[in-house]
Amino acid sequence: MTRRLLNERDIRFLLYELFDTESLLQRERYRDHSTETFQQILNTAQSLAEEYFENHNVKGDQEQPTFDGESITMIPETKRAWDAFAEAGFLCAQYNYDEGGIQLPEIVLRTAISYFCAANIATTGYTLLSIAAANLIREFASDPLKDRFLPPLCEGRFSGAMAMTEPNQGSALADITTTAFPTGDGMFRLVGNKIFISGGEHTLTENIVYLTLARIKGAPAGAKGISLFLCSKYHVEDDGSLAQRNDIKLSGLIHKMGYRNTTSTALAFGEEEGAVGYLIGEANQGLKYMFHMMNEVRIAVGAGAVALAYQGWNMSLNYARERPQGRLPSNKDPSSEQVMIVEHADVRRMLLAQKSIAEGGMALCMLASTLFEDSKTASESGQREEAQLLLDLLTPVVKSWPSRYGVASNDLAIQVLGGAGYTSEYPLEQYYRDQRLNPIHEGVEAIHALDLLGRKMRNGTAFRILLDRITATIRRSRELEETVGLSAQLERHVELLKTISDSLLAKLDRDIDLGLANASLYLDVFGRTVVAWLWLEQATTAALGLQRTPLGEADHSFYRGKIQAAHYYLYWELPQIEWQSGLLRELNPICFDMRNEWF
Amino acid sequence: MTRRLLNERDIRFLLYELFDTESLLQRERYRDHSTETFQQILNTAQSLAEEYFENHNVKGDQEQPTFDGESITMIPETKRAWDAFAEAGFLCAQYNYDEGGIQLPEIVLRTAISYFCAANIATTGYTLLSIAAANLIREFASDPLKDRFLPPLCEGRFSGAMAMTEPNQGSALADITTTAFPTGDGMFRLVGNKIFISGGEHTLTENIVYLTLARIKGAPAGAKGISLFLCSKYHVEDDGSLAQRNDIKLSGLIHKMGYRNTTSTALAFGEEEGAVGYLIGEANQGLKYMFHMMNEVRIAVGAGAVALAYQGWNMSLNYARERPQGRLPSNKDPSSEQVMIVEHADVRRMLLAQKSIAEGGMALCMLASTLFEDSKTASESGQREEAQLLLDLLTPVVKSWPSRYGVASNDLAIQVLGGAGYTSEYPLEQYYRDQRLNPIHEGVEAIHALDLLGRKMRNGTAFRILLDRITATIRRSRELEETVGLSAQLERHVELLKTISDSLLAKLDRDIDLGLANASLYLDVFGRTVVAWLWLEQATTAALGLQRTPLGEADHSFYRGKIQAAHYYLYWELPQIEWQSGLLRELNPICFDMRNEWF
Repeated sequence: MTRRLLNERDIRFLLYELFDTESLLQRERYRDHSTETFQQILNTAQSLAEEYFENHNVKGDQEQPTFDGESITMIPETKRAWDAFAEAGFLCAQYNYDEGGIQLPEIVLRTAISYFCAANIATTGYTLLSIAAANLIREFASDPLKDRFLPPLCEGRFSGAMAMTEPNQGSALADITTTAFPTGDGMFRLVGNKIFISGGEHTLTENIVYLTLARIKGAPAGAKGISLFLCSKYHVEDDGSLAQRNDIKLSGLIHKMGYRNTTSTALAFGEEEGAVGYLIGEANQGLKYMFHMMNEVRIAVGAGAVALAYQGWNMSLNYARERPQGRLPSNKDPSSEQVMIVEHADVRRMLLAQKSIAEGGMALCMLASTLFEDSKTASESGQREEAQLLLDLLTPVVKSWPSRYGVASNDLAIQVLGGAGYTSEYPLEQYYRDQRLNPIHEGVEAIHALDLLGRKMRNGTAFRILLDRITATIRRSRELEETVGLSAQLERHVELLKTISDSLLAKLDRDIDLGLANASLYLDVFGRTVVAWLWLEQATTAALGLQRTPLGEADHSFYRGKIQAAHYYLYWELPQIEWQSGLLRELNPICFDMRNEWF
Repeated sequence: MTRRLLNERDIRFLLYELFDTESLLQRERYRDHSTETFQQILNTAQSLAEEYFENHNVKGDQEQPTFDGESITMIPETKRAWDAFAEAGFLCAQYNYDEGGIQLPEIVLRTAISYFCAANIATTGYTLLSIAAANLIREFASDPLKDRFLPPLCEGRFSGAMAMTEPNQGSALADITTTAFPTGDGMFRLVGNKIFISGGEHTLTENIVYLTLARIKGAPAGAKGISLFLCSKYHVEDDGSLAQRNDIKLSGLIHKMGYRNTTSTALAFGEEEGAVGYLIGEANQGLKYMFHMMNEVRIAVGAGAVALAYQGWNMSLNYARERPQGRLPSNKDPSSEQVMIVEHADVRRMLLAQKSIAEGGMALCMLASTLFEDSKTASESGQREEAQLLLDLLTPVVKSWPSRYGVASNDLAIQVLGGAGYTSEYPLEQYYRDQRLNPIHEGVEAIHALDLLGRKMRNGTAFRILLDRITATIRRSRELEETVGLSAQLERHVELLKTISDSLLAKLDRDIDLGLANASLYLDVFGRTVVAWLWLEQATTAALGLQRTPLGEADHSFYRGKIQAAHYYLYWELPQIEWQSGLLRELNPICFDMRNEWF
C-alpha cells in the first residue's frame, strides 16, 4: 500500500472518469493516439521521474547551486535529469508532428509533468519555464526568430526563462525601468537589472533564452509602454551555431528557504555595450504577449503546488499506516497493543484534509488543462471561446488555491509525523519549504485576487459559464443517494458566492479602493467554491462508479474514499465562506480603515 | 519608528494597563520592589538580549551544533549568551532571597524572558528548560538532592533537561519502557533510550541534570507505573565537586528544519553499568511531578511562539513602511509616485492579522503569568485555588494557540515581503522554520485538545470561573461607545462556546471515542474565544485610555490601533467558530468514520 509518486488509481479516475480524456481521441489532431499510448507516456514519465528526478530531490536542496563570481556549480544529477526529460521528448510533446512534437493532448502532458514535479519540483522548474518560453515564441515571434530558437529549445540544447521582475518594483510590473535602445537595424540594446529570475543561469544547456520585458526609449509610462524582447545568453548565428556572449551578466544567486535547486538569479543587462534583444511582436504590447507565458506558468505553479501537497500526503499516509502509537480513548488497558496512528480520528482529519487538497487541486489543474485543450482544439468556435473565457476566469484560482492550501497541506503532513516530521530524516520539511514559494512567485496572492475581482469578474459571461457548469453538476448529483445532501450543501454556498459577487461588482464602480480592499478574501471564497464544485463532481462520479457490477473491493474503497473526502471538503472547509461572505457583503472596512500610525 | 525587539509601548500597556502588575507591590513578597525596579530588569533583559542573543540568531541557524561521535561543537556565542543570562540572575530571579533569588514576580520574569525569545529562540531554549527543571527539583525533590543540585542550577554551572520521549512512543507517555533497577541503597540504575531530548547535550555548562521518566522494574503498565528520576551527566560528590561520567551517552544529534541552535538529542541510558538515578518523590507518581515541569514548559512554548510572531510582525511592519510599490487602484496615473506597501489594504490585513496574533498571544501568556502568580501569592486561599483552576484549564490553549497561529503569523510576515521574504537575506524564513516546532514539541496539538476536552473541561468549576471573567469584561465593555458593538459580538460567540461545551460533555460519557473525535476543532473554538475575550479586554482598556486628558498623539494612535485590532480579531477571526460549532454540535462523524482502506 506504500505510495511513491502521486496515486495511479486517482490519476486514472481523474483522466477517464471525471474528465473524458478518451473523447479527445475523436478529435482530428489526436486520431493517432489511444488510451494505451497515453498510458505509455505516463509510465515513461513516472519511471524517468523516479530514476532521474527523485534521486536528487534532497541532494539538490542540501547542495544548492553556488556561484564563485565567475561560474556556477550545480550537482551533475540536475543535467542528467534535464537530458532525460528532453530526450524523452517532453519539451515539445504537445507540438505538431512537423514541428518535432507528437501532438500530445495538454491534459496528458500536464499529468506526465506532475510526476516530475512530485519527484523533484526544483529540477522540474527548468523544464516548465522552458516549455512556456518556447510556447510564447511559437505563438508570437517572427518566423526567423522561431526558426533560430525553437528547434534548440525543443531539443533541450537551449532553455528558456522569463526576465520580468526588477529590484524596485516587485509585483508591480508596470513600473519596470529596463530600457531598450533601438540600434537602427531592427534590433535593440537593453540596459537594466532583473531580479528573482528563476533559471536565469545554470549549467544545463548550451544557451539560455530570456523573454525580457523592457521599455523602448521614449515609450509611455506604465503598462502601455512595455515591450517584449528575446535576448539570449550567447548570440546565435544564422546557421544555429553559437557566437560570443551577449551582454547579460549574472550578478549573483539568491539564497532561498526552498526550491533551492532552481537557481534564482540577479541579472545585469547591458553593463557594457548593451544586451542585444529582438523585439517580439509589436512595440508596447509586451505585457500582452508575456501574459501568454505567465498564464501558462501560473497554472504550472498551481500544478507544482498540487504535486508537493500530494507527496506530503502520500508520505504522511504511509507513515500513519505503519507507526503504532497510543490507543483509542475508550481503551483504558495500558497493556493492550498500541494502534497505528491512522486509527486516531484527529490523524484521519489531517489525512482527509490533505486528500481534499491534493486530489481537489489535481482536479482543478486538470480542469485547466481541459479548458486549455478545448480553447485550442474543440470543434466548435463557441466551445473554444467558452473554454478560453472560463480558463481566463479560473487562472487566478488555479495559481493561488493550490499554492495557499498546498502550504497548509504540507503543514499537516509534518504534523502527522510529529517530531519526526520536523527532522530532515523525512523530506516533508523540504516539501514545506519548497511549497512556501508558490504563493509568492508568478505574482503574490494579492495580485491574483485583484486580477479575479478587478478584471476577470468584470466579464459577466465567464462567471455565467462557470455557474452553468456548477448547476449542471448540482442537478446530476441531486439524483444520487450518496450525493443528494452534498448537492444541497453546494447549492446553498454557490448562492452566497453569486450574491456577494453581484454586490461587490456593483460597488467597484462607486469606490474601487474600498471595493477591492477585501479582494483576497473574495479570492478565497471563490476558490473554495470552485474546489467544492469539483469535489461534488468527483463524489457524483464515484457514486456512479459504486453502481457498477461487478465492483472489486479496491475500487469500492476508492470510491467510498472520494465520497468521504467530498463530505469533508463540503462540510469542513466550504462553510468558512459563510462568515467570509458576511464581511464581503458589508464591504467590511476594518483593514481598509487601519492607519499606518496605529500599528 | 523601526521596531527591534517586541514593542515597549505595548509591553507597558499589557503590564500596567491591561494587567495590574503594580498591585503586586502590595503583596508581602514584593514589597522591596517598585515599578522602577521592574523596568530596570526589563531594560537589562532587553539590552542583554540585543547584545548576547540577537547577535547569533542567524549564525546559530547556519552553523548548527555538530557531533563527531566524541564531542559536540557549538558556536561560542551560545555559551557567552548563557553566561550573560546566568550572571544577570535570570535563572533564579523568581526565588526567595534566601535561595539566591530576588523574588521577582512571574509576570516580570516572563516578560523579561520574552525579550530573549524574541532575540534568539533557540539559544533561549536552554535557559527555559533549566529554569523549569530547577523549579521541579525545588518543588518535589528531597532536601539532599535540592542542596546538591539547586545552587549550581541557579548559578548556571549546571543546566537542566527533560528526558521523557522514547523512540517508540512519541506523545504517548504512558508507553515508555526505560527501566529503573533498584540498587538497594536508595538509588536506581536506568536502562533505556530517549529521543528528541532538547538541550540533552551541549557545551554550555559543567554538568547537565536530566529529569528522567522511567519504570521501576516490576511497576504496573501504563501511566500508573512511571516514576521520575534525577540523573546527571556527571556524578556530583557531596561537596558539590564533579566525579566521573554517568552512564548516559549521546547517540546522536537530530537535524531539524529550525530551532537549530537548541540541540535535539538521542540519549542512551545504561549501555554499560546502568545510569545512576535518584528517585524524586514517590515511586509511580512520576507523571504527576513531571507535569509540574511540563506545564511550565508548555506555557514557555506558547510565550516563545508569541515572541517569534512578534518579531515577524515587527520586521514585516518595518519593511511595509519603507518599501514603495504600486499604487491604489483608483490611481491610474503610471507616472505618479509609488506608495509604501503599508498603504495597500491587503498588506494592512496581513499586518493587522499579525498584530492580533502577536499582541493577543502576549496578553494570553501574561494572563497565564498572573494566574501562576495568584496561585502562589494571592492573599486568599480561594483566590489561589481559583487561579490554579483557571491556569490548568487554559494551559492547553496557552501552549497551542500561539503555536498554531504563530506559524500563520510568520507565514504572513513572509508574504508581506514577497520574494524578499523567501530569501535568507531576512530572518523571516528562519522565524517560520523555528516557529514550526512549536505545534509539535511539548505535546502535539491533538494531545492538548484531548487534555482540554477530555480532562480539563470535566471540571465545571474551572470553566465557570472563565465564563465569569469573560462576562465581567463584556459588562464593562458594554458601557463604552467604542466597544459596545464588540461586546455584543463576543457575547454571541461565548454563548456558542457554552452550548457546544455542554453538549459535548454530555456526549463524552456515552461514546468517548466519537465524543473526543473532534477535540482539535474544539480546542480551536475555545482558543479563539479566549483570545477574543482578551482582545475585548484590551479594546476596553484602550477605550478608557482614550478618555484620558491630556492624551499625546502617540498614545492616541496606540489606543486606536488596539481598538482596530480588536475589531479585526472579533470580526475576521472569531466568526470562524460559527461553522466550527455547527460541526461540534452535531458530533460530525466525517473524520471519525473515515477508514484506513478508503484513503
